[in-house]
Amino acid sequence: MIKTIRDPIHGDIGLGDVELGVVDSPQMQRLRRIRQLSFCSLVYPGANHTRFEHSLGTMYLAGKIAQRLGFDDDLTRKIRLAGLLHDVGHLPFSHSLEGLFDISHEYNARAVINGEVGDVLEDGGFRKKEIVDLIGGKGYGKIISSQIDADRMDYLVRDSHYTGVAYGAIDRDRIINVMGIEGDNLFFQKKGIVAIEALLIARNQMFEAVYFHHTVRVAEAMLEEAMKPLKGRIGAQELLKMGDEDLKTRARQDNPASKELLDLLDARRLYKICYSWKKLDKENLKENAIKELGIEEHEMIIYNVKLPKRLTFEIPIKEENKLVPISKISPTVKNLEENIRRLEETEACAPPELKDKAKSFFERV
Amino acid sequence: MIKTIRDPIHGDIGLGDVELGVVDSPQMQRLRRIRQLSFCSLVYPGANHTRFEHSLGTMYLAGKIAQRLGFDDDLTRKIRLAGLLHDVGHLPFSHSLEGLFDISHEYNARAVINGEVGDVLEDGGFRKKEIVDLIGGKGYGKIISSQIDADRMDYLVRDSHYTGVAYGAIDRDRIINVMGIEGDNLFFQKKGIVAIEALLIARNQMFEAVYFHHTVRVAEAMLEEAMKPLKGRIGAQELLKMGDEDLKTRARQDNPASKELLDLLDARRLYKICYSWKKLDKENLKENAIKELGIEEHEMIIYNVKLPKRLTFEIPIKEENKLVPISKISPTVKNLEENIRRLEETEACAPPELKDKAKSFFERV
Amino acid sequence: MIKTIRDPIHGDIGLGDVELGVVDSPQMQRLRRIRQLSFCSLVYPGANHTRFEHSLGTMYLAGKIAQRLGFDDDLTRKIRLAGLLHDVGHLPFSHSLEGLFDISHEYNARAVINGEVGDVLEDGGFRKKEIVDLIGGKGYGKIISSQIDADRMDYLVRDSHYTGVAYGAIDRDRIINVMGIEGDNLFFQKKGIVAIEALLIARNQMFEAVYFHHTVRVAEAMLEEAMKPLKGRIGAQELLKMGDEDLKTRARQDNPASKELLDLLDARRLYKICYSWKKLDKENLKENAIKELGIEEHEMIIYNVKLPKRLTFEIPIKEENKLVPISKISPTVKNLEENIRRLEETEACAPPELKDKAKSFFERV
Amino acid sequence: MIKTIRDPIHGDIGLGDVELGVVDSPQMQRLRRIRQLSFCSLVYPGANHTRFEHSLGTMYLAGKIAQRLGFDDDLTRKIRLAGLLHDVGHLPFSHSLEGLFDISHEYNARAVINGEVGDVLEDGGFRKKEIVDLIGGKGYGKIISSQIDADRMDYLVRDSHYTGVAYGAIDRDRIINVMGIEGDNLFFQKKGIVAIEALLIARNQMFEAVYFHHTVRVAEAMLEEAMKPLKGRIGAQELLKMGDEDLKTRARQDNPASKELLDLLDARRLYKICYSWKKLDKENLKENAIKELGIEEHEMIIYNVKLPKRLTFEIPIKEENKLVPISKISPTVKNLEENIRRLEETEACAPPELKDKAKSFFERV
Repeated sequence: MIKTIRDPIHGDIGLGDVELGVVDSPQMQRLRRIRQLSFCSLVYPGANHTRFEHSLGTMYLAGKIAQRLGFDDDLTRKIRLAGLLHDVGHLPFSHSLEGLFDISHEYNARAVINGEVGDVLEDGGFRKKEIVDLIGGKGYGKIISSQIDADRMDYLVRDSHYTGVAYGAIDRDRIINVMGIEGDNLFFQKKGIVAIEALLIARNQMFEAVYFHHTVRVAEAMLEEAMKPLKGRIGAQELLKMGDEDLKTRARQDNPASKELLDLLDARRLYKICYSWKKLDKENLKENAIKELGIEEHEMIIYNVKLPKRLTFEIPIKEENKLVPISKISPTVKNLEENIRRLEETEACAPPELKDKAKSFFERV
Repeated sequence: MIKTIRDPIHGDIGLGDVELGVVDSPQMQRLRRIRQLSFCSLVYPGANHTRFEHSLGTMYLAGKIAQRLGFDDDLTRKIRLAGLLHDVGHLPFSHSLEGLFDISHEYNARAVINGEVGDVLEDGGFRKKEIVDLIGGKGYGKIISSQIDADRMDYLVRDSHYTGVAYGAIDRDRIINVMGIEGDNLFFQKKGIVAIEALLIARNQMFEAVYFHHTVRVAEAMLEEAMKPLKGRIGAQELLKMGDEDLKTRARQDNPASKELLDLLDARRLYKICYSWKKLDKENLKENAIKELGIEEHEMIIYNVKLPKRLTFEIPIKEENKLVPISKISPTVKNLEENIRRLEETEACAPPELKDKAKSFFERV
Repeated sequence: MIKTIRDPIHGDIGLGDVELGVVDSPQMQRLRRIRQLSFCSLVYPGANHTRFEHSLGTMYLAGKIAQRLGFDDDLTRKIRLAGLLHDVGHLPFSHSLEGLFDISHEYNARAVINGEVGDVLEDGGFRKKEIVDLIGGKGYGKIISSQIDADRMDYLVRDSHYTGVAYGAIDRDRIINVMGIEGDNLFFQKKGIVAIEALLIARNQMFEAVYFHHTVRVAEAMLEEAMKPLKGRIGAQELLKMGDEDLKTRARQDNPASKELLDLLDARRLYKICYSWKKLDKENLKENAIKELGIEEHEMIIYNVKLPKRLTFEIPIKEENKLVPISKISPTVKNLEENIRRLEETEACAPPELKDKAKSFFERV
Repeated sequence: MIKTIRDPIHGDIGLGDVELGVVDSPQMQRLRRIRQLSFCSLVYPGANHTRFEHSLGTMYLAGKIAQRLGFDDDLTRKIRLAGLLHDVGHLPFSHSLEGLFDISHEYNARAVINGEVGDVLEDGGFRKKEIVDLIGGKGYGKIISSQIDADRMDYLVRDSHYTGVAYGAIDRDRIINVMGIEGDNLFFQKKGIVAIEALLIARNQMFEAVYFHHTVRVAEAMLEEAMKPLKGRIGAQELLKMGDEDLKTRARQDNPASKELLDLLDARRLYKICYSWKKLDKENLKENAIKELGIEEHEMIIYNVKLPKRLTFEIPIKEENKLVPISKISPTVKNLEENIRRLEETEACAPPELKDKAKSFFERV
């Protein structure tokens, strides 16, 4: 280790020389300007932490897992690099705009690694493809990206620390200590099952209290609305050079409606949810609402609250030498997906002064 | 407040004059010598905290709840005193011996308050009966003793701090902030439901990982076995003057088998679980085992793992001006009781060297 | 309290209605876009917290102190409002540019309170002047601004939480508990002297390890250099509408050298310190260096490391009914100012590739 | 690692097979019954932690230091064992009775290691003498026992956690990261000097606020008085089998005055300090006081407050390839010893009802 960086979660995080080269690249430094939780800070004012420190934390935990699994130094270094780089392809505002611009951050990691960072890796004796594959969750990459991985363990604890919400305080020591591997399949010994249940429940609780808090949902809908005019006119390559604020500046200059929405976000003058549907099948509802209420296009936003597609809880537990999916032995886990999916619905939001009118319009229709 | 005491959980806890008088009584001081978690320290070496500090913490949280509910100073002081005194009738080793001696600590609070502590209360202008009733959970006493109360919030957080197990880190600020009262019925506003689910889950996790950890179960079975000869020969009054170590000294002097068991506990030479039954209906099993294996009475212990009788989760949630039991609106809560009841079973334990022989005996029968 | 906000330091912070109105004003919301520690996040990546949450925390602690001192509700509310508003006049980048633009944030509070926030205060029945005076440290305002105050207690703990540096973990409970007041003079009872010494030492340690870390010094010098062209061309009124990023955008558009410096900061390609002087009395040194080395104006920055002017440690301690300055009774405190003043010096920094050349130039001169 | 133990300070602590054997020995298990801070729990009710967990923590930190210094596995295991065993020779009540019985715990470690624990070591391939030497601070043993060592780092953090006093929250990560070794001389790189100063100050603060708190001083004086009759009649070998409570039981049975004092301690009915001397040179003062006041021998205790003999702060700091004692470069450190030595004085304490009479007697004399 040739340098250490102080992290409020894991203490001193050491960096080897290639890792330091990666950290010093503009691609990684850009992550300092992308907040981990996008607009959650409008509800939890402490949540200003960035993808940069989360990347360091993921590297750290990935390394601890690799050590626990008895990997040799070379493999451990690759796993750590994959952890460090797993979010390098994130758009500004983290996940908030992935739907709009139709770009997932894992996909992008590939592109970014072909830039300057890629050279650092090759100069350090690593093959870029190998690291990209690990980031994609292939083989030992499950340490970075699977049901219970370094990424998730880091963000749950980190988001707790900065929001002040207790739920994410998972027992990472315990979980890492019961990890094992067969071929490239990660598993967990049965004696650690309480810690794993606790992590899965914690994630649900963080979804509900933080990531999908109703105010956060509205703010992200406003953001997406503000960015819509840029769709198709701004490419991945350009986005991958921007931080959150750069993209806001660009959108503000592009379009007065975007500027208005972003100014409202800055002043925390947020739209209010005026209606919600479990399943919305009416067409042209927004058009009709706008016409009927005599308002502008951007004053009515209808959006879907969408959890990650894959939430399955098929974590392999080792019980008497067999691997069993956790749902088979843990009644606690059984309803977790169902419980949290109920957050998924379609909502309409509008400026506070329009809320009542909009509500009664939707009730009529 | 005329004195403050530093608590690692709540910071400085202030004491008024009557409270200080109560704290200074021998009955309350005795709680310094009763560990909160009996033998859990054999698994979690940090768990040496006592009923004394837990009593201070319960008083503190009870006062915060009373304030939140808008109670006047007089009522708040009563609630605080009830919180302070709620465990004053605990036997040595907390709950471990309540079954054997057939004495519940709530029952005992009454007796103890009639001693010196009672005089302190009366001199301070409080009626003893009123405090005893609050401790028993009557009326506003639900703040001290109900489904979600000051007692439980304190012990979950405190036990986490000392064991180092993360699960108990509940969000007491949030829970207190959503509390309300109608008549003397405590309720919780719906917006706080995640915090309440989290507390209920945390309790289950603490049951599994700490309070009913298999090693703890064995140690408590050994303790109870060591105390059996005293049953019927030692009265509540005498027990209520003793700390954990006093009772051990007494049992050691009383009986060589008791001494042997307690010495094993001190040296952490514990029995091993050799068999378990979901429901044991064989009679004379222990007698037969002893005869067959040629061992002494105290070398085979058969005991029931018993959770608290009342675990129902019928916490009232206020939703649009109606009180609804939480189980009606929270799918998370539905299976909690069922999940944790599976810990209940009958087990047999014996010295390690007898484990295999005992196991095959039980398999045969 | 009609709303609560979750803070990672103090837990749930309640807001009354006027306070909520103040928080919702654009002036206060702007503080969300000003980082508490300017460029410290280049060394401590977790240090992205903002003046906004610090303002909430200061309000909270100010209220606790007022309560402790037995103030009535009305006075307590004023003190809380002063705490909430004490940083509302901060320029972008907190203290970093106060020298350059020659504007102190206390001065500005006055101007800002005359805007929309001022109306909220007046509508709520408060006189603006009264709050401004409290912010300025007059009378009971010492609770907000003096040697040991709500402001300082909040920022030390908060900066520790986000940087991960342990030193700031001061004992605020203890300090508040030993506070007293005579007229409008705050004092501290002698029994709390260890806690106060600890706070003063903690501040020194935070100066050395965080606020004046050598990398932070360089980054702030680069920032100031980038902003120099705006001096005299941008007014307080304009600055007081900007967040950190707004000012960066403005400077980038203004001037290519500024853009270059800010791009270097974004990519963390920092200048290196090449020389330092205890007392620099050479004139025209920069001009000569630039000429001699054949470099551009902005490639050599010479700046003074300047601690706050007032660091005196004359905190009044109550000892047997007399107020004594702490330096009279605490040998620990005696050298604190001298110890930390040694950080003050003049430094020159330049791009890494120029470091050696510059160093030998300065050695020659 | 074949087993892990959960520690609230360091998380999961792994144990190798020899280490597990050592932990399971009766000598080590005895440490569960010796509280780390003797009677500090009378002031800080959370301070019930034991020498047992502190020993595990010291082992853990010693191992981290060894790793940092690049030691091989074999040496690291020895260092860890020395850390684990460094307190195995402690008398009941930790340091409180070392003066009375004139036995230091380092001396005793030797004797104890010659018991069952010694066999575990030898069976595991270690030579007992080697471990004993390391415990004594010889050679690499400075990692366990010197100015800044694993022992001290563990107890400062641990005592903070359990007392709730913030001062001990030292930055162990940072300190370990700047450690180096030349021959067997531990040193610290200069860039870590703030962390080291902070540790030294923290120790002073803990002395003042916790270890030598005036109530703690009185309680320990009462304890020593209660044990005096046993002096010369109980040997080291016997003491080294006892926990705190065992020794209390023995003293109670031995002598009615001892019983009375110990009962007072249990009920927290403590003597009061009635007088103190910077240097007491009167002879027969106690005898005269007893005669004059007409009280019993054990109702007047005169005792010296004595800090550890060696408090020198000659920690070697590496500055530009030379080792310099810290006092040469840190003005902060200069007065630390002088500051804390002022706690040393002679005090007299007596039952509260005698305080005034005793005070005026001493004032007369």
